[in-house]
Amino acid sequence: MASLSQSARKLLEEKNFAFLGTLNKDGSPQVTPTWVGTDGKNVLINVATHRQKFKNVSRDPRVAVAVVDMKDPYKGIIIRGKVASIVRGKEAEDQDDELAIKYLGHKQNRKPNTHRAVLKIEPSKIVETD
Amino acid sequence: MASLSQSARKLLEEKNFAFLGTLNKDGSPQVTPTWVGTDGKNVLINVATHRQKFKNVSRDPRVAVAVVDMKDPYKGIIIRGKVASIVRGKEAEDQDDELAIKYLGHKQNRKPNTHRAVLKIEPSKIVETD
Repeated sequence: MASLSQSARKLLEEKNFAFLGTLNKDGSPQVTPTWVGTDGKNVLINVATHRQKFKNVSRDPRVAVAVVDMKDPYKGIIIRGKVASIVRGKEAEDQDDELAIKYLGHKQNRKPNTHRAVLKIEPSKIVETD
Repeated sequence: MASLSQSARKLLEEKNFAFLGTLNKDGSPQVTPTWVGTDGKNVLINVATHRQKFKNVSRDPRVAVAVVDMKDPYKGIIIRGKVASIVRGKEAEDQDDELAIKYLGHKQNRKPNTHRAVLKIEPSKIVETD
């Protein structure tokens, strides 16, 4: 497991978007922009469970995540790793609320019958660009 | 082949970064931030040929590209497609210069013994987020 440096954690804590790479069923890559957070060790991404990216990581946990400073996109991190655990239920809804507050300044209503999951991504390799 | 809408072309023509998803040798995903352009039909990404992403697309041409408006990251495009052709030599160096002018405002010196290639990415599916 690779450790997040202080600057990497800062990028994940600020209001930058992450670009999550996952694998489709046929092995082709998918990339989607998402909100992101961190617990200091893992990259935390919150997804609705009906989304393709959730199906993808449930099938194959290997992922890549790129985050750049939206104000200075030459500064960024590229992470390879795997989804080490998936958390559902209240913890996932709470983390979804936390991210909404971080990015939008307020909680947002969840759509009915939408279920959330936190992807806890354990980095195996981290490259910082500057 | 999917067509780029006017708003998709605009996102590619402005100074936004693209996040290119490729496949490593072991089939795991890689995501890297890059400059990007378009000829109106294809997504054009210029890479140094010693880079992992170039090796990856030379082995397996399946890619994904996500681009968001850096000023409003809720507006973006997600593209799936394949590298339909790779152009090297003077055309690749000229396109590298074009991108440097677009992003930096001026050409930059290429490192000695660095070779450039244009990846012409033919979109098979385009999703716009708003």
